[in-house]
Amino acid sequence: MKGLDYLFHPRSIAIVGASADPAKRGHTYLAQLQGFGYPGGLYPVNPKGGTIMGMPVYPTLSDIPGDVDYVISVVPAEKLPPVIEECAQKGVKVLQLFTAHLGETGETEMEQRIVEQSRRAGIRLLGPNCMGIYSPQERVTFRFGWSGLSGPVSFISQSAGHTSEVVYQAQVRGLGFNKVVSYGNAADITESELLSYLAHDHQTGIIAAYIEGVKDPERFPTALREAAEHKPVIVIKVGRTPAGTRATRSHTASLSGSDSVIEAIIRQSGAIRVNTLEDLVDMLVAFNYLSPPTGRNIAAIGSGGGGSVLVCDEFEAQGLSVPPLPPKVESQLKVHLGDDWSLIKNPVDTSVVFPAGYEFSDLRLIFRYMANHPDYHMLIGDNGEWWLDTLDDLGRYKQLTDTYIQVMGESAKPGAVVVRHADCPEEWRWRASMEAMSRCAQARLPVFPTIRRAATALSRFASYHLDCFPTP
Amino acid sequence: MKGLDYLFHPRSIAIVGASADPAKRGHTYLAQLQGFGYPGGLYPVNPKGGTIMGMPVYPTLSDIPGDVDYVISVVPAEKLPPVIEECAQKGVKVLQLFTAHLGETGETEMEQRIVEQSRRAGIRLLGPNCMGIYSPQERVTFRFGWSGLSGPVSFISQSAGHTSEVVYQAQVRGLGFNKVVSYGNAADITESELLSYLAHDHQTGIIAAYIEGVKDPERFPTALREAAEHKPVIVIKVGRTPAGTRATRSHTASLSGSDSVIEAIIRQSGAIRVNTLEDLVDMLVAFNYLSPPTGRNIAAIGSGGGGSVLVCDEFEAQGLSVPPLPPKVESQLKVHLGDDWSLIKNPVDTSVVFPAGYEFSDLRLIFRYMANHPDYHMLIGDNGEWWLDTLDDLGRYKQLTDTYIQVMGESAKPGAVVVRHADCPEEWRWRASMEAMSRCAQARLPVFPTIRRAATALSRFASYHLDCFPTP
Repeated sequence: MKGLDYLFHPRSIAIVGASADPAKRGHTYLAQLQGFGYPGGLYPVNPKGGTIMGMPVYPTLSDIPGDVDYVISVVPAEKLPPVIEECAQKGVKVLQLFTAHLGETGETEMEQRIVEQSRRAGIRLLGPNCMGIYSPQERVTFRFGWSGLSGPVSFISQSAGHTSEVVYQAQVRGLGFNKVVSYGNAADITESELLSYLAHDHQTGIIAAYIEGVKDPERFPTALREAAEHKPVIVIKVGRTPAGTRATRSHTASLSGSDSVIEAIIRQSGAIRVNTLEDLVDMLVAFNYLSPPTGRNIAAIGSGGGGSVLVCDEFEAQGLSVPPLPPKVESQLKVHLGDDWSLIKNPVDTSVVFPAGYEFSDLRLIFRYMANHPDYHMLIGDNGEWWLDTLDDLGRYKQLTDTYIQVMGESAKPGAVVVRHADCPEEWRWRASMEAMSRCAQARLPVFPTIRRAATALSRFASYHLDCFPTP
Repeated sequence: MKGLDYLFHPRSIAIVGASADPAKRGHTYLAQLQGFGYPGGLYPVNPKGGTIMGMPVYPTLSDIPGDVDYVISVVPAEKLPPVIEECAQKGVKVLQLFTAHLGETGETEMEQRIVEQSRRAGIRLLGPNCMGIYSPQERVTFRFGWSGLSGPVSFISQSAGHTSEVVYQAQVRGLGFNKVVSYGNAADITESELLSYLAHDHQTGIIAAYIEGVKDPERFPTALREAAEHKPVIVIKVGRTPAGTRATRSHTASLSGSDSVIEAIIRQSGAIRVNTLEDLVDMLVAFNYLSPPTGRNIAAIGSGGGGSVLVCDEFEAQGLSVPPLPPKVESQLKVHLGDDWSLIKNPVDTSVVFPAGYEFSDLRLIFRYMANHPDYHMLIGDNGEWWLDTLDDLGRYKQLTDTYIQVMGESAKPGAVVVRHADCPEEWRWRASMEAMSRCAQARLPVFPTIRRAATALSRFASYHLDCFPTP
């Protein structure tokens, strides 16, 4: 192990400023690590001694019997110098500073002194003003609610709140995370070093980043390009507006910099820039599940007539195409449906198919003809809300989802399902929506909550694979 | 009563093509009207006679003892001429054609003959290819799941599926509807006539329209302007793309026309154009609850540091402003918070307020100072997902929502709350989100599910009130 390996694979963790009070962070870190089953040495440190949740509390780091790779500090900033000294004596590799009120509140000199002291001692600093690491495979976390499911997505974020929203929303859609880093003010370990590390991390397949200010501007363009050459990288870079710039300064002491320069760097790197957390999650979902498309033509099952029109407008407005049925598919439909073949268009309007006397087996066949035709490159199925009027609709709603899962599962082409949000006061509707989402996720299909978001994500995904990015 | 009054206030309804088979539309119309408590005469008509759900079935319209204002036809298109003849003899005012396979499947001539026959008989036609009317106050509906709550929103839509999604999503956010019209192919009653009627309908406070093709192009610019001069009008006009144009033709036989012409007509009318159903609902929510702002400056409570940055970037990118605290508010904070006053910015970062030892009573006071200052014109409160990590968080999450409801309730300024979607596999989280939404709605506060959507809706809402529209 070397460098940032200790950040992501600590063999032991000590919490300096450990507390028996469940309302304090010095307690919740311990409770979260213990509850998540962290298998390494876990050591509360507090001069008061005693025990916390059955663990003996060590008065100082030096009192801990074994080695300590990783220390989480929750003590106030002014108490850090002796903590760093203790860390040095103990051979600690990484010191994570939950400790805040440094650069972001104007204590820039104190922050700088702490960085210099740590560097002299060979200790890497994460933060200050950060929550640290979530890594399901290492059983490390800083939230109670997160899943133990591991996956290919790694996410570096200057905001801990954003890790919370992104991880939760992505987990609901079936994604697993590998390394999530809340890195705060980035006084020592910067976005650039993290990006370079993740570029070569074989466990990481997709990188997401939320950046308030680039802390290592010299290295950043190279680091971002290095990462984007190895895997998909999705970046939110805030501070696009005057108020946003002020807010990044007071949140993580970040200078957001010229947005046009940032925009150019991101575009040249081959990374994808988005501006909201929901767009970030949408791109992670797309990259997690989908194989690259070979073109931009969509074959779709629409949710009724109006829903089909919206699919057309939204996907074509995003630069994709929803072309009519090719003659070969029309011939196949003529064989199966006779004169009714002309009722079928792209998108297929389900509110025409069923009243004409056809069933899900017919819809499956129709969608399969479309999916198999080489003129179509991506598949979309829409589960509109009107499928769930009463409890009696549940069976047919499930059959619709099954039809999508089956046809998309057979096809090598990228496919996605639109399932409306579960904002349902009725428990049965909420359950039906959540179950549709979870069954799609189990079948490794991305789910998007609106036609607009499906169109936006698939358009960005297609452009990533089909457009030529500038090469070095 | 005259003209379209009979469409919206029918004293009696007959279903021609009534059926005892619950899977058929000739049955569900009856079941829905009966179940919704329609108080007028309700008459199943079918040559077979018998009874359906306890109601005697009349062989023909002429056999019905009383007057019939409104007939719903579910019979095939080729059986319409004798039905229209019967309607004429019975003095029927409005014939609604669920009957389809006319203009939209190329049967343009047959559709035209039906329109002419009806006109000669003085009968107004709704449709063909439409679901009809939902009017809670009249207890008329074509869906089982819709609420009986009445409100100021009227919605005309060429797509029945879209009425389903819009009504459901809007009802979840506390909106009530007045008149919802699925008007299909609009062979006789067009968008223009409906807009003119709603312009002068005192029960309608806000108009929404989903239009696939303008069927009365000569009257449309005047009708839209007439409506927009009297009340807010939100329009989705599809057929913006080649595939969208094809799809409107096969859905409702609509020629979508030149989008730049449409765009100019809508802009000149003072109506607001949006492109998705979720944006439509967002605007209805804004207009339903909010008083006009007197400026574009936002005072906000952010969901943590990162959430506060996103509020800044998203609102300012939409043309609103998130200015720093005015000196007067800073002075008020100094009195209450002492040296900690400098921790407070706009947006207020709640992840700084509570760890500094302050409580909801302090947050309420801080937000109230901001709300009361004349430099701020609109209020935003964000309920980030990280507020709901464990069951223990429920109390504080509720207190946060209460704080917003209280401060916004006291203020005359428009205010909105961001509550994340209830896409939660855990029942307690789903309940907490839905409860926050419903409590905001009860307090007449609009809820938006993302910062982006709140920013977009409030920006459009502010522009509607603050910008000068061209006047005639």
